[in-house]
Amino acid sequence: MMSRRPQVLAIDDTPVNLFALGAVMEKDVDLQVATSGAAGIKLALQATPDLILLDVMMPDMDGYETCRRIKADAQLAHVPVIFLTALAHIEAESTGLALGAADYITKPINVDIARLRILNLLEREGLRREVMAQRDELQQLITRLTQSSAKLEAARQRELGIGFDIQRSLLKGDVPEAIEGACFACSSQPSQGIDGDFYDIRCIDADCFDVLVGDVMGKGVQAALIGAAIKMAYHQAVADLLIDHLRLPTPAEILNRVNQMLTPRLITLASFATLALYRFHPSRGTLTFVNAGHTSGLLLRQGRVQAQPISGDNLPIGVLLSEVYTERCLAVASGDSLLVFSDGITEVLNAEGEEFGQERLAAQFEAVLDADDGTGEAKLERIRCAVQQFTDGALAPDDQTALIVALR
Amino acid sequence: MMSRRPQVLAIDDTPVNLFALGAVMEKDVDLQVATSGAAGIKLALQATPDLILLDVMMPDMDGYETCRRIKADAQLAHVPVIFLTALAHIEAESTGLALGAADYITKPINVDIARLRILNLLEREGLRREVMAQRDELQQLITRLTQSSAKLEAARQRELGIGFDIQRSLLKGDVPEAIEGACFACSSQPSQGIDGDFYDIRCIDADCFDVLVGDVMGKGVQAALIGAAIKMAYHQAVADLLIDHLRLPTPAEILNRVNQMLTPRLITLASFATLALYRFHPSRGTLTFVNAGHTSGLLLRQGRVQAQPISGDNLPIGVLLSEVYTERCLAVASGDSLLVFSDGITEVLNAEGEEFGQERLAAQFEAVLDADDGTGEAKLERIRCAVQQFTDGALAPDDQTALIVALR
Repeated sequence: MMSRRPQVLAIDDTPVNLFALGAVMEKDVDLQVATSGAAGIKLALQATPDLILLDVMMPDMDGYETCRRIKADAQLAHVPVIFLTALAHIEAESTGLALGAADYITKPINVDIARLRILNLLEREGLRREVMAQRDELQQLITRLTQSSAKLEAARQRELGIGFDIQRSLLKGDVPEAIEGACFACSSQPSQGIDGDFYDIRCIDADCFDVLVGDVMGKGVQAALIGAAIKMAYHQAVADLLIDHLRLPTPAEILNRVNQMLTPRLITLASFATLALYRFHPSRGTLTFVNAGHTSGLLLRQGRVQAQPISGDNLPIGVLLSEVYTERCLAVASGDSLLVFSDGITEVLNAEGEEFGQERLAAQFEAVLDADDGTGEAKLERIRCAVQQFTDGALAPDDQTALIVALR
Repeated sequence: MMSRRPQVLAIDDTPVNLFALGAVMEKDVDLQVATSGAAGIKLALQATPDLILLDVMMPDMDGYETCRRIKADAQLAHVPVIFLTALAHIEAESTGLALGAADYITKPINVDIARLRILNLLEREGLRREVMAQRDELQQLITRLTQSSAKLEAARQRELGIGFDIQRSLLKGDVPEAIEGACFACSSQPSQGIDGDFYDIRCIDADCFDVLVGDVMGKGVQAALIGAAIKMAYHQAVADLLIDHLRLPTPAEILNRVNQMLTPRLITLASFATLALYRFHPSRGTLTFVNAGHTSGLLLRQGRVQAQPISGDNLPIGVLLSEVYTERCLAVASGDSLLVFSDGITEVLNAEGEEFGQERLAAQFEAVLDADDGTGEAKLERIRCAVQQFTDGALAPDDQTALIVALR
């Protein structure tokens, strides 16, 4: 426990008394002797001892006065003082006790017992120093731990921030409010974590627009980045196909190209993404779409009360390089509405472990369209509230993205 | 320091000896008395005391035997034992010392000195416990700090990983090795941190290709994400312009569209990016380009020894919404080579604080093309080594991206 040999200072005008003790303690301590109180204090101030043995009866300055001066000195006050006193005087030692004596050793000295007392006190002082040193160390560690925790929290926040940046700037763009033939509403509630929902609306001309929705398997920033790469590949594919054919590529052509571009990399990353691409031609009254493993769209036709799930049977992007994506075409008309959504909405669970499910979502969609009040955003907000109510306000484990296309 | 009152057990067949001491120490300790060694050990085992006062002379089991049994018991061995002994016997106490006595108090008891010794030892034991408790606490804190540091390191690695993922999957794509009219080589050395260098090569047809290079102001994942958003906007702009005009948009049209799409957001983010877009038509012998604040390209014509810097005077993307990007057109021919690079190469400093600079880079480019050995990658590697040599192997503060286009 003690890193160095303890220093004991004995102050005694007849040091011969101490020779036997000095010999016995040679292995334990360094013993220094002063033959007067003044000389002892001078020595102690030069190098603070760990313990002082102090003879009571000395000429000039006696032990009491010496002790008084020691205890009055800031540098020495903490040093334990053991008084050396004649056996005959021990009963009168209230003076020494009042001065803060740590113990007594009677003369003639029983060296074994004296050694025990000296070592007891030295050990106590060593432990006291160790407690102080440990306390400093604890304080430093706590400071470092606090700093480390703060840095960790900052890193977590930064990672979350990166995720939100990716979502905001790459995965989810601005949704045009309305074009000539349709109006749009979009709601995307990020989950606690980060995941890879993405969407895009491309207005091709006054009478044609594409709606892309996608969802990357898995969570976290990696899923979000894969989503961004897929969305970038989508734009690149559209541009490349336009350059190749100098005409607008079909939804199936686009998804086939995206699958060709990304599948090798997605297989390497052990990831895949579900996608659906819907192309509306309001004046022609057509909706052409490809669904690559994504949730069904819910199409509610003008005047009907029940929404119709519209789906495809293609694999997600990133599963099979040879997958051939095919499109379906439906007739649509003014007043029809399409709801597309991520499975983060239908797969939420209530307290009983039931899924919200597509049927409940369809019922909500039918109800909010039937009510026909307010904007598309207000309708989506009502659907969102219904989902919240179902889960009793539990935090959503996945992004909840929903988009309504309403044909005018 | 001690959280509870110390428990002192006195074992003495004539406890009347202890009454005065008990009275004096009432405020300091809880004193329990046993009148025989056997009873004392039984009590001690029921509730381990902090200190034992043990009379030497007792009928049946004397103090020595009692002490021997205490020291032989794992539960009690650590408890300090102070022997109570008649003054007349103190000189014969080698037995007690050998048994591990902590101290002696002579009878008749001087209560003040006895109290001092008891408190000295109790304090020592309290400090010893505190040292142990603090040691545990230190160990726990060190464990937590180690875990926290590991988590922090993991978070840092994750952030770095995210940055590299963005660079690999979004900013820097595959470079086609060669097309009919040209071959390409690309080298991109990521810096210690993450930044926003990006590039793209688009083969439009057998006789036309676009080379885009860009560099986002600032560093870190945010810069990389902005780079990704710009590259995505570039692809989207090309697709949108193709849809709008049903013909290939010019480089100036593309950059004007990208600037329109991104400037409001970049101003909000207090960021901007330099871009250069080069369009080669090898058979027509033209190079059309727009430079939005990016480093000059270095064009080395067939048969010439000096590379010509080709530059523009447009602002970076994200500075001014009304900036009009204009293109320049140069004649190029088979055998001409263009080097495009990020300022991470020209702005490296040597030990004297000098920049590598465009002139040194041009000289290197001329030298490696003149040597005319090996692939484009080998040429870029030689340039990279020259830069490394210049900085004496110091780590690059910025991404170093270089791309050679060699017309066949």
